[in-house]
Amino acid sequence: MDNFFAFGFGISTLSEKGLELDCYFPKPITDVDSTTEGVLDELPIGAHEISAETAKLFGRNAKSLHIPSFRPESNKKFVYVKLTEDVEIRSTPEAYLKLHLMSHRLRVPNSLNLDGLFNHLPNVCWTSNGPIATDEIGDALEESRINGKHLEIFSVDKFPKMVNYVVPSGVRIADSSRIRLGAYLGDGTTVMHEGFINFNAGAMGPNMVEGRISQGVTLGSGSDLGGSASTMGTLSGGGNIVISIGENCLIGANAGTGIPLGDRCTIEAGLYITANSPVTVLDKNRATVKVVKARNLAGKSDLLFIRDGQSGAITCRTNQNAIELNAELHDLN
Amino acid sequence: MDNFFAFGFGISTLSEKGLELDCYFPKPITDVDSTTEGVLDELPIGAHEISAETAKLFGRNAKSLHIPSFRPESNKKFVYVKLTEDVEIRSTPEAYLKLHLMSHRLRVPNSLNLDGLFNHLPNVCWTSNGPIATDEIGDALEESRINGKHLEIFSVDKFPKMVNYVVPSGVRIADSSRIRLGAYLGDGTTVMHEGFINFNAGAMGPNMVEGRISQGVTLGSGSDLGGSASTMGTLSGGGNIVISIGENCLIGANAGTGIPLGDRCTIEAGLYITANSPVTVLDKNRATVKVVKARNLAGKSDLLFIRDGQSGAITCRTNQNAIELNAELHDLN
Amino acid sequence: MDNFFAFGFGISTLSEKGLELDCYFPKPITDVDSTTEGVLDELPIGAHEISAETAKLFGRNAKSLHIPSFRPESNKKFVYVKLTEDVEIRSTPEAYLKLHLMSHRLRVPNSLNLDGLFNHLPNVCWTSNGPIATDEIGDALEESRINGKHLEIFSVDKFPKMVNYVVPSGVRIADSSRIRLGAYLGDGTTVMHEGFINFNAGAMGPNMVEGRISQGVTLGSGSDLGGSASTMGTLSGGGNIVISIGENCLIGANAGTGIPLGDRCTIEAGLYITANSPVTVLDKNRATVKVVKARNLAGKSDLLFIRDGQSGAITCRTNQNAIELNAELHDLN
Repeated sequence: MDNFFAFGFGISTLSEKGLELDCYFPKPITDVDSTTEGVLDELPIGAHEISAETAKLFGRNAKSLHIPSFRPESNKKFVYVKLTEDVEIRSTPEAYLKLHLMSHRLRVPNSLNLDGLFNHLPNVCWTSNGPIATDEIGDALEESRINGKHLEIFSVDKFPKMVNYVVPSGVRIADSSRIRLGAYLGDGTTVMHEGFINFNAGAMGPNMVEGRISQGVTLGSGSDLGGSASTMGTLSGGGNIVISIGENCLIGANAGTGIPLGDRCTIEAGLYITANSPVTVLDKNRATVKVVKARNLAGKSDLLFIRDGQSGAITCRTNQNAIELNAELHDLN
Repeated sequence: MDNFFAFGFGISTLSEKGLELDCYFPKPITDVDSTTEGVLDELPIGAHEISAETAKLFGRNAKSLHIPSFRPESNKKFVYVKLTEDVEIRSTPEAYLKLHLMSHRLRVPNSLNLDGLFNHLPNVCWTSNGPIATDEIGDALEESRINGKHLEIFSVDKFPKMVNYVVPSGVRIADSSRIRLGAYLGDGTTVMHEGFINFNAGAMGPNMVEGRISQGVTLGSGSDLGGSASTMGTLSGGGNIVISIGENCLIGANAGTGIPLGDRCTIEAGLYITANSPVTVLDKNRATVKVVKARNLAGKSDLLFIRDGQSGAITCRTNQNAIELNAELHDLN
Repeated sequence: MDNFFAFGFGISTLSEKGLELDCYFPKPITDVDSTTEGVLDELPIGAHEISAETAKLFGRNAKSLHIPSFRPESNKKFVYVKLTEDVEIRSTPEAYLKLHLMSHRLRVPNSLNLDGLFNHLPNVCWTSNGPIATDEIGDALEESRINGKHLEIFSVDKFPKMVNYVVPSGVRIADSSRIRLGAYLGDGTTVMHEGFINFNAGAMGPNMVEGRISQGVTLGSGSDLGGSASTMGTLSGGGNIVISIGENCLIGANAGTGIPLGDRCTIEAGLYITANSPVTVLDKNRATVKVVKARNLAGKSDLLFIRDGQSGAITCRTNQNAIELNAELHDLN
């Protein structure tokens, strides 16, 4: 097989009008073995429906390809997606497959071509009865009430929550509504109630996440993001700087950063560093060396940022007491 | 018809003891046409139960009034509410009708008489089986467990979440638990996971809401409220100043305001302006003009608030680079 | 009876493989009367299964001990736990019993021996079908989708949300996903959408909680915790100082504290006090008395903390205008 990027069997939910609202891929693959290569080679590229007829195509390879026996459902559609290259997204199942690849840890954030993503993700009401189209939700609500049934609407969004599609191993997620499908959570990651992880963003693990990881942002191994801590995303004021936080960093509660950080950096609780903030750099004796824009410190390691409680100046010095990630913190929260 | 304020057909949920826990109005109206005027004229003012008998009252006008065929349900009660004037709230259905009017965009925040609201909203357990009375929830939990069923309790509050009653068109709501019934969301509004909108508060649309809109607060068209940004409500320390944020403003992440803002204002990430904060006003050359309490800048336009990174002073200057709302931000988050 | 600590009838959920995932105690007791003493005396210490056979043991005392008629369920196990002393936790039912004791207001935070807690709380997927084991969730998700059913996953955590087990009287909880079992909520407490309360932490009531109460932290009667306000926990950077906030305090929105506070203290919105922050103490004439580390002010009453808007210094003076808790704030939010 010359080229192979990804393959997945998927189950789409259809609206009353037949619109594809989502697509769930239980076990997508990015590697192919000698058994399955033959079958995959013959399949057309893109997203395709599986009918009772075409189901036979997969024959005895169905198991290796994680395709269950065909069971047509009222509002479900069985599909497969085959991609030989990481090209622009052309359909809803393709969009969902790429989001699944990141949440299944098969691809890391910022490594995929996500062009066309928003165009192929319909806005959906995510309910206790599964996905419902936004233009059909009014009738669904009224009908359920009149019949004395309860319909709970969890979200109205283009992205569903991750865990209804993928539950990665070795993680804890205190409030699953705050992690979108397409987030990457490495092994040993705990996301507390105030934590948030967008699609195409992630915590490489192990991490303690109590703040917000914006789209495109990654948190290196051993780093902690404190309660309500903010990472400025490229979509929300951070411009075209992609923020990343290195390993063993500590971003305090209610703090934030508009610049990427290297390893072993600390921002004290309550301090927000924006790219334009003038920062007073101190030497070991806490004497001023120079004042620079924070953007000039982007990506550097071993920095400790504090707003001086007397002068009010934002200061930066070498992080001599780089805070070691307390193993208990991961075990005991 | 001399006076008309609002009419709605509603479905109330009753507790085991018969207490009215909520009331859902699928399609309330605030305008009356020649067809329906006659029927409405004859109805008594206030909230009234619809029985199989009285259902006939509406006759062939039932459709125009959005009243379905009568189907009595075990724990549901069919009602109608007719109000000729915007008077003090006297019943649970009336309270719910007014909250619906705002979420249906039939009335804007701060335009309704909400006297009596809290007295007529019982505290309710909002569950996967619908509303349950707080003094009946213990038994319901025990009974469901003993029978091997699961009962999920989403909230214990006087206000339900908006989207279980009203899903406005053209909005995205990443976590529906954070928007109360009675919130106003204009077309084109996206509320991210950290966003919050109280009752009688709103985003006029289009807006990106990642912070908290307190009771009574409104966000003008084109304004962005950053992650965890706070607007001080009259109920939580803001006193009797009603906070509003004008058009095309940007309140940074983890920032906040205790004063109303005009149009095209920016508060940098992490800076909280309270009414009593002394603010150093700068001219174009960044020379100090004067120091004033923030309350004296209330409602003014084109202001940029930054805490100086060296002196620690809260400064304010003309917002020469008023940040244009990035259309992509709405499309790509 | 020589010693008695606690007793409870419990219902455990079992995984497919038979692992005990949780244990629900409808009405645990910490006091014993003359009727039940005889029965309890004869029971062995610890957690034990109740079979149809052993159910007879309780005989006519079943009612006083809150034990229902035996109804075996497919994935449920009936147990009882008897503890004569507050010893280290040795089983999942014992762990759950202690968490219940705090949420039922039978014990206050920091008064229980919680050694062994994390070891005996399995990580669980909390779903719309009840608790499911993390290694069984993938199959459950796939099976439900293939069959056209919806399975909602609310959380993947060692701790469940409190209200699915205990709904204390006289409280409002706007978003129940933010309060873990083991939290203590006193009568008259309102927790708004942004509020959070960890296990072994609490609001003694009445309180308005819009910020985060970390593990081990308590909020005294009449105190308000503003939106996104942070209390530094011993597990998240606060070291071994246990934070407590006294009575009638006001912690502003987006503020935070790394030191315990006495009564009638105020921290202005947006200001974070860490233990190492240098604080300028002012006299009545606002003249500087001295500069001290915040840790030296720990636990003192009647303090008002503000960051000076001109000098940028963190200041502290006597809280002459101690903000009285506005009763309306509790009634009208």
